[in-house]
Amino acid sequence: MSRFQTVFDRIVAPDPGPGLLAQAHLDSLTKPQGSLGRLEELARRLVEIRGEERLTVDNAVIFTLAGDHGVVAEGVSAYPQVVTAQMVENFLRGGAAVNVLARHAGARVVVADLGVAQSLPAHPELRAKKVAPGTQNFARGPAMTQAQALDAIEAGIDLVEAERDLDLIGTGEMGIGNTTSASAITAMITGVSVESVTGRGTGIDAAGRERKVAAIRRGLELNRPDPGDGLDVLAKVGGFEIGGLVGVILAGAARRIPVVVDGFIAGAAALIAVTVKPMARHYILASHCSLEPGHRAILNHLGLEPYLDLRMRLGEGTGAALAFTLIRAAVRIYTEMATFKSAGVSERGE
Amino acid sequence: MSRFQTVFDRIVAPDPGPGLLAQAHLDSLTKPQGSLGRLEELARRLVEIRGEERLTVDNAVIFTLAGDHGVVAEGVSAYPQVVTAQMVENFLRGGAAVNVLARHAGARVVVADLGVAQSLPAHPELRAKKVAPGTQNFARGPAMTQAQALDAIEAGIDLVEAERDLDLIGTGEMGIGNTTSASAITAMITGVSVESVTGRGTGIDAAGRERKVAAIRRGLELNRPDPGDGLDVLAKVGGFEIGGLVGVILAGAARRIPVVVDGFIAGAAALIAVTVKPMARHYILASHCSLEPGHRAILNHLGLEPYLDLRMRLGEGTGAALAFTLIRAAVRIYTEMATFKSAGVSERGE
Repeated sequence: MSRFQTVFDRIVAPDPGPGLLAQAHLDSLTKPQGSLGRLEELARRLVEIRGEERLTVDNAVIFTLAGDHGVVAEGVSAYPQVVTAQMVENFLRGGAAVNVLARHAGARVVVADLGVAQSLPAHPELRAKKVAPGTQNFARGPAMTQAQALDAIEAGIDLVEAERDLDLIGTGEMGIGNTTSASAITAMITGVSVESVTGRGTGIDAAGRERKVAAIRRGLELNRPDPGDGLDVLAKVGGFEIGGLVGVILAGAARRIPVVVDGFIAGAAALIAVTVKPMARHYILASHCSLEPGHRAILNHLGLEPYLDLRMRLGEGTGAALAFTLIRAAVRIYTEMATFKSAGVSERGE
Repeated sequence: MSRFQTVFDRIVAPDPGPGLLAQAHLDSLTKPQGSLGRLEELARRLVEIRGEERLTVDNAVIFTLAGDHGVVAEGVSAYPQVVTAQMVENFLRGGAAVNVLARHAGARVVVADLGVAQSLPAHPELRAKKVAPGTQNFARGPAMTQAQALDAIEAGIDLVEAERDLDLIGTGEMGIGNTTSASAITAMITGVSVESVTGRGTGIDAAGRERKVAAIRRGLELNRPDPGDGLDVLAKVGGFEIGGLVGVILAGAARRIPVVVDGFIAGAAALIAVTVKPMARHYILASHCSLEPGHRAILNHLGLEPYLDLRMRLGEGTGAALAFTLIRAAVRIYTEMATFKSAGVSERGE
C-alpha cells in the first residue's frame, strides 16, 4: 500500500470527549467563564485534536517548502524566478522572516526543495525532495503529471514522518509565481470567480495582475480540472511545494497533530487536502487572514476562522509562526492558571 | 510643582524622522515591501515613540492596578466585591491569567492596590497605594473627591517612576464593578449612548444589565461630569485603579515609553488621559478589541486600531500581554532579518 493510501486511511474524526473535559477544566480557572475567548477555544481544539487532556507543545515545526512555477513565463510575478532559490538559501542561513518568527515562537523551520528550478547545493538542513525543476506552464498545459502530483504529496508525508514526537505543525512555502497557482486552485475548488480570488502577489502592477487573471482563465479552460478531485486540480494547475504541503497536512491529520495553515498558498494546499479527505479539516487551524483576496474564499470554504488579521501577505509560514505564539499562550493558560478552588477565589454570587 | 504637572508638561509630540528611517530599513529586508503589514507598522511606531532607531524591549512591565467600586451596591456585578481582594492575592501568587500571559510574553506584572475595599496584608510584591477603601457609589453622588482623583493619578505616576529603564508598559486592572465605571466614562467622553456602551461585564444577566444601565444614567444625571475635563469625569464616575492607570499612561508618554492599553477599563483610563493631555495619544498602542461593547467606541474615539481580536473580555492586562508577544515579534523582524543586499537576494524585476 502506498504511503499516501496509508495516511489517507488513518485520518478519522476526533472524539469530542476530551474537548468537553478541557472546557470543564477551563471553566474551573480563576476568570469568568469564556472570558479568554478564542484562547480558550484554541486550548479546547488542541485537546480535541490530540485526543488527550494533557497539552504540550515542546516540538513545533514549520515546514517551509519551495518550488518553482512554469506559469511565470506569462509575466505574472514582480520578482525574477531565481528569487525562489535565493530565498531557500536565506532560509538556510536563518535570515528570512519565517526564521525570525519561528525563533520567536520557539519552533524549528524544516526547509525542503520540492521543485526549485535551480540546482541547490547540498546543505545539512535542506531536505532534497525535488520532484522536477519547476512545474510546466499551466496556461499552456498541465502543470505536472498525476504521478508527479502524487510524488509531491508523498514527499510531504515523508517530511512529517521523518520527525519524531511532533506536537505542532505549521505550513509555509516559497515559490515565485505561486499565488497564480493558488488563485487557480481556489477558483476551481471554491467556485468563486478568478477575478475575485486573484491579487497582486508580491506586488505586481495592474497590468501584471490582468496578465495573471488571463493566464489563470486560460489554464482552467485548457486543463479543465475536476473540482471534486484534489489530485487532478493539483496536477493541472498546482505546484510541487503545494503538493508537498497537501502531504504535510494529511500526514499531520493522520497522526492527530494540529496543523496550523499559514496564508493564501498554504490555504490552497489545505483546500486540496480537504477535497482529497474531508475529515482532515478537523486537524487544521487557520493562523491568519492574508491580504491576498482569495484567502477569504478559502477560509469560508473550509469553515475556518483565522486567529490573526495583521494585513500580512508574505507566506513562508510567517502567519503560522505568529499563531504558534498564541497557541503557546493558550496552552500555558490551560496548564498554569489557578482554579477558583486552589486560589480560594469566590465564584459567581448567584 | 506637582508630579502631575511635571509629567503633563513633559508630554510632547514625537518627531516623525526616526519613524521614516525605520520604514526605510524595513523596506531593505528580504520580503516584498510592506508584506508584513501591521508588524512593520508596529516596529515603525515603536521607533517613532522611542525617538531612536535602535529598538529594545528588554524591560517590559504590565501594571495591574486594583480598586473597588461603591456602585456595586446597585447590583451591577455577577461576582461579590471580595473577589477584588482575592484576585490581588491570586496575582501575587502568580496564578491569574495575566501572570501566565506575562510570563509567556517575558514581562513582569507590577500589582498595586489603589483602592481595594478590604485591607490587604503586606506583601513584598504588592505596591500599597490605597487612596481609600473603594469609591463611593456614583449613582448616589461623586465616586471620589477631586483631590482623591489627583492622588490616584499621582500614585500611577509614582509606580512608573519607581521602575528604571522601562522599554514597554502595559496597563491592566482588577475591580469588581469597574465595567460600570468604564461605561459611564465612555458614554460621557465619547458621546455614545449609555445603552450602547454597557455590556455584561463578568457575565451578569439581562436584569442585572438593566440595573447597570439605570445606575450609570442616574450617576451621569446626578453628577453631571464635564466631558472636556478628564479629572472631573474621573472624580465623578471613575475608580481609583482607573485613575492610577491614567497616571501610568501619562507617565509613560512623558518618558516616551510605548503604552500598550489592554481592554475596556484600561481603554476608559486612556480616554481620560487623552482628554487631560491630547498629545498622550501618540504613545498609546491598542492591544486588542474586547467583547465589551463600549471598547469599540473608545478605540474609535482615540483613532486606534487594535492588533488582536480574540473575543476576550477579562481585563487584568491579558490583552496587553498578548500584544507584547506581537511587539517582540515586530522588534525581532526589525533587528534580525537579512537585507536584500546582505543575503544576495534579487530585488523586484522592474
